[in-house]
Amino acid sequence: MSGNTFGTAFRLTTWGESHGRAVGAVVDGCPAGLALSEADIQPELDRRRPGQSRTTTQRKEADLVEILSGTFEGVTTGTPISLLVWNRDADSSAYDAIRDRPRPGHADYTYMAKYGLRDHRGGGRASARETVGRVAAGAIAKKLLRQDGIYIAGYVTELGGIRACLSENSDIMDLRAAAEGSIVRCPDPEAGAKMAELLDIVRKEGDSLGGVVEIVASGVPLGLGEPVFDKLDAELAGALMGIGAVKSVEIGAGLKSARLRGSEMNDPIILREGRIDFESNNAGGILGGISTGAPIICRIGVKPTPSISRRQRTVDLSLIEAAEIEIKGRHDPTIPPRIVPVAEAMVALVLADHLLRNRAARV
Amino acid sequence: MSGNTFGTAFRLTTWGESHGRAVGAVVDGCPAGLALSEADIQPELDRRRPGQSRTTTQRKEADLVEILSGTFEGVTTGTPISLLVWNRDADSSAYDAIRDRPRPGHADYTYMAKYGLRDHRGGGRASARETVGRVAAGAIAKKLLRQDGIYIAGYVTELGGIRACLSENSDIMDLRAAAEGSIVRCPDPEAGAKMAELLDIVRKEGDSLGGVVEIVASGVPLGLGEPVFDKLDAELAGALMGIGAVKSVEIGAGLKSARLRGSEMNDPIILREGRIDFESNNAGGILGGISTGAPIICRIGVKPTPSISRRQRTVDLSLIEAAEIEIKGRHDPTIPPRIVPVAEAMVALVLADHLLRNRAARV
Amino acid sequence: MSGNTFGTAFRLTTWGESHGRAVGAVVDGCPAGLALSEADIQPELDRRRPGQSRTTTQRKEADLVEILSGTFEGVTTGTPISLLVWNRDADSSAYDAIRDRPRPGHADYTYMAKYGLRDHRGGGRASARETVGRVAAGAIAKKLLRQDGIYIAGYVTELGGIRACLSENSDIMDLRAAAEGSIVRCPDPEAGAKMAELLDIVRKEGDSLGGVVEIVASGVPLGLGEPVFDKLDAELAGALMGIGAVKSVEIGAGLKSARLRGSEMNDPIILREGRIDFESNNAGGILGGISTGAPIICRIGVKPTPSISRRQRTVDLSLIEAAEIEIKGRHDPTIPPRIVPVAEAMVALVLADHLLRNRAARV
Amino acid sequence: MSGNTFGTAFRLTTWGESHGRAVGAVVDGCPAGLALSEADIQPELDRRRPGQSRTTTQRKEADLVEILSGTFEGVTTGTPISLLVWNRDADSSAYDAIRDRPRPGHADYTYMAKYGLRDHRGGGRASARETVGRVAAGAIAKKLLRQDGIYIAGYVTELGGIRACLSENSDIMDLRAAAEGSIVRCPDPEAGAKMAELLDIVRKEGDSLGGVVEIVASGVPLGLGEPVFDKLDAELAGALMGIGAVKSVEIGAGLKSARLRGSEMNDPIILREGRIDFESNNAGGILGGISTGAPIICRIGVKPTPSISRRQRTVDLSLIEAAEIEIKGRHDPTIPPRIVPVAEAMVALVLADHLLRNRAARV
Repeated sequence: MSGNTFGTAFRLTTWGESHGRAVGAVVDGCPAGLALSEADIQPELDRRRPGQSRTTTQRKEADLVEILSGTFEGVTTGTPISLLVWNRDADSSAYDAIRDRPRPGHADYTYMAKYGLRDHRGGGRASARETVGRVAAGAIAKKLLRQDGIYIAGYVTELGGIRACLSENSDIMDLRAAAEGSIVRCPDPEAGAKMAELLDIVRKEGDSLGGVVEIVASGVPLGLGEPVFDKLDAELAGALMGIGAVKSVEIGAGLKSARLRGSEMNDPIILREGRIDFESNNAGGILGGISTGAPIICRIGVKPTPSISRRQRTVDLSLIEAAEIEIKGRHDPTIPPRIVPVAEAMVALVLADHLLRNRAARV
Repeated sequence: MSGNTFGTAFRLTTWGESHGRAVGAVVDGCPAGLALSEADIQPELDRRRPGQSRTTTQRKEADLVEILSGTFEGVTTGTPISLLVWNRDADSSAYDAIRDRPRPGHADYTYMAKYGLRDHRGGGRASARETVGRVAAGAIAKKLLRQDGIYIAGYVTELGGIRACLSENSDIMDLRAAAEGSIVRCPDPEAGAKMAELLDIVRKEGDSLGGVVEIVASGVPLGLGEPVFDKLDAELAGALMGIGAVKSVEIGAGLKSARLRGSEMNDPIILREGRIDFESNNAGGILGGISTGAPIICRIGVKPTPSISRRQRTVDLSLIEAAEIEIKGRHDPTIPPRIVPVAEAMVALVLADHLLRNRAARV
Repeated sequence: MSGNTFGTAFRLTTWGESHGRAVGAVVDGCPAGLALSEADIQPELDRRRPGQSRTTTQRKEADLVEILSGTFEGVTTGTPISLLVWNRDADSSAYDAIRDRPRPGHADYTYMAKYGLRDHRGGGRASARETVGRVAAGAIAKKLLRQDGIYIAGYVTELGGIRACLSENSDIMDLRAAAEGSIVRCPDPEAGAKMAELLDIVRKEGDSLGGVVEIVASGVPLGLGEPVFDKLDAELAGALMGIGAVKSVEIGAGLKSARLRGSEMNDPIILREGRIDFESNNAGGILGGISTGAPIICRIGVKPTPSISRRQRTVDLSLIEAAEIEIKGRHDPTIPPRIVPVAEAMVALVLADHLLRNRAARV
Repeated sequence: MSGNTFGTAFRLTTWGESHGRAVGAVVDGCPAGLALSEADIQPELDRRRPGQSRTTTQRKEADLVEILSGTFEGVTTGTPISLLVWNRDADSSAYDAIRDRPRPGHADYTYMAKYGLRDHRGGGRASARETVGRVAAGAIAKKLLRQDGIYIAGYVTELGGIRACLSENSDIMDLRAAAEGSIVRCPDPEAGAKMAELLDIVRKEGDSLGGVVEIVASGVPLGLGEPVFDKLDAELAGALMGIGAVKSVEIGAGLKSARLRGSEMNDPIILREGRIDFESNNAGGILGGISTGAPIICRIGVKPTPSISRRQRTVDLSLIEAAEIEIKGRHDPTIPPRIVPVAEAMVALVLADHLLRNRAARV
């Protein structure tokens, strides 16, 4: 009943707190026969690592992943893959101030209320550090997917109200490459520069920005997704909304669909080089919860970083009286650039899961 | 691995096709001791029934629910509750035309591709008729929740681009009552009238409209939701995105969060009559995936009805050649008014599930 | 958390009480493309039906199964298969006496204690009638398995201490055929005759007999079973122990293994016609929880029918005072003959489940 | 679909291979507020550790458990508890001989067939070393259970055909204490001495012995167990049969039930000091899959150690030709003494799981 496991056939269980001894994950259900080593995982962890630029926190984490089980002579064996990253460089004293003073916009108060106690250091289990396990597992899922020609790309399309201008026909791996070269992970250099500029201002004001991230999967075969509750879009929505700070999830035309007419929304079914295809992709690659073969398109709305240095009102839990809080330390002034690899990982995990589940669809 | 079961502690399995013999659901995990009879369920089914007004299809379905198990002398016994509704008045011949011609915007093509065959009559399993089971089960969940003072209300806030104007301080059950009196389930009578007018025009044009539905739960106790994957918002997002035609899900400030600053987004934590509370509710009642005690606020973007009478392009699957399709029969020109009870049911199912799961949170 | 669903990939949910309106099952995960009609299921239900002979109860149940969903034009569609059997001919008044007086050896007292109330009529949910759903679902699993050349046979090997004498080299379908011709479902006619004779005596004494049933699956391919918790033998043991009245489960040499030496127990690995095989089958077709390709052999010890007409001591739950009970009505004086189709069904469900799960074993 | 997770509410996922870097477990669902440190777990690991006596293997393993997450200031927080034990002292070269020659009675051949490859070193994932994670998790479950007055004891009742003579009225913790003082974990000193003697002889012959272990849980409250598939006895049977080398599971009177009459088997329901109780306990503390309040009694039949030094026949997998194998190294000549803590752990895990699940039984 506890919710630390994700997936059905390709399953991930994460564990660990921000300032505990380590964080990690166990991947169960990865098929045997996949070449796998730490070198397949480390680059993804490096992408999510803070301390890389002005837009991310300065905490230095080596974040070296170790594979403790599940492979033999560089190949997966079908047994659980245990992934571990030691926690280092964690100064918990900075968090003494929040022990009794829950931070607005954070999980401090709700964890306390649910469990009666909490590891407050660095946000404990509710810290973004938990996503280390997701990203590491997602790297394995991605490798599995690549073998089937499925690729996933995420990038920032909007930050602090500034929108990227992207061509609809861009190759998603080109977009991803462009985004990776940007300090705010935006594939549109012009918009990216403006976003970075605004971020600098906002950071100095002790405030933070929200934004929008798009994640696209190409090469997804027809037929993935299990109706009626485990639809591909339902599972993607759950996976993405379950990332901290995400407040909206859209598939394909998303919220815009609500303002279209049926004749505009429906993607005509056509023949393209003798194969059945769709003229447009408002559906975002999913109909009736099952993949259409077109690219899967997801978009998430990410709230601004709740940890801001401005003074905020809270309540002292021990005294039960009004209090104030100023959050010290260096925090990302915006989350979208760092959420990209996490969101990609979640999409990869959902797709890997459904790729395996779909094997049981027919006699 | 098949996806027809929803929930962990309070579980629902639905079955049935649109033109099969019946549709139904099995609810497992409903605690013993809840007074329950068909009279608790029928009103919710009546709310989702088509044929009630100009905005919904004219198919006449009695949709009388029968409880076949799980109660004794009017009280639940802790054993599975089997719910059944016979299918009637189904003329399948109208669907002969779509047997080989998948309808744009529908699941026809993807089901065919996934399973190699499909029951095309009335959309088969992918029909909105499948939601009969969800709504019936949701009625049980609602009754369970009401015992804990939890109430759920859904209503249309936008249709065809026309937005309702709602006061933030409205009691949600008042909003619901107002919506139930509206032909388009909009609690703002003025906006509702305009929506209905536009719908009439669009129907005559052989087209359809999308819209937005808001679902709010009040009285939700602090502490529901299981981090890190089964967060309350993650499960709500999955549950709502899994309803046919939903293309976006938002929690609290939702997509708007992406355009706020941290100092605007964070809900200050305050004391209200000696109790810890929040000054605002941008979080939508959930922090770190756990309920805050404030109302849970969800919003879904619903695409326009894909079944339109205008001629559309498709492909004939037997001939593998381009074809056209005109969808006969009477179809709802818009989905949001009818999706309201379904969305409410899904929210109720998620909350009932987490209410039970939360009992295991502490020693 | 409630326990009315069985299986992972091929899943069964049963519902219904003995004297409720109906009993039934939903099978989810049956692959699309399997020819299926009521005629595939009815014979199995007929095998479990009481009232066939002196050894079984006289209650007349038509037990006609109806498929309400999941097939189209005689073929499974990959959607849930809903199975329903109406309850008829149930005289609940005979059970008034047990409303407050739990029967020794039955679940009356434990259900009451767990749920605070119970449907006492005919044993309610704890009645053997619940197995209708299992047997119906098992018939579908069997049909799926037969397509892969997997056959399942169950028969009584011991009753009231009288043991059947069976040749080790018998074809299992021959054993099954012989058993089906026997009033006690024993393939050894001589032992069967003695068992029937003893049963007559014991019934007249108002008492009952226990026995042993063996279930064998042939043609099971190598590689089924998921270590380390969902081992094939673990799942078989759970499935079989979960049938009412079963008190022991053995795999292969079973309890006898405890008295063998390693050199006797180990099945030598050999070449047989160029294929790897085992010289003996003490393992019962399973090593490390994974099928070896040899026949799967299970044995269950079944307690004597708890419903006996002799006077027994119990406690009146309303008065909280010592009481006596004489169980009226006609009850089977022994369970093993009727448990055979149920046990076969459970073995079939486990194997079908693992057949599908195994598809995800390798890249 | 992979089977490395056990339990529903109190869940255990184990990982690790015998000669990999480490073995471990993640416990999810342990309620918040339980005092817990390594000192609660280490004694149980010490009990399962080999190298303690003549009857167990000589491999020296420190087996020091580390808790990497899930506790804060010595108390569980409701988040996953990650447990890790490093592998040391593993000489893999001794296993080169079995790389292509599957050992009779082991999982070598079935793993190879299922996955196409395997980590052969020390048995890989199929090694008894995997139970480190189970025992560590079981120690947490035991601590949780002790808070509710539930105690679990396991001991050897039969070895190589020699049976212990135990009084029915013994306190189970006394039996456990006596067993812990015995080299073969038999609480009857006389029988224990004979067993040890026989073991010495058999070891010298290059052979091994099987035996029987009984596990009893006292203080189990009424009402645990979820009908109809997740019955307490079904889950215990699955849990115990899933331990390597177990070939039979019995509950209460077990296989003997098959030879009793109903009037002998049924436990009369009586009043004892004003409370409802049972005069005998042939049921083994479970009726209808739900605990009766009487002690839970399980018995497992354990096959003789398959690793024997005698020459055995096998097949060379690379050459596909008949071969022989002599298993080098020091192996336990019998498994029952070492299986005791593992079996206790599995029983504890099942009970802890159902203790939490039962919280959802009533409104």
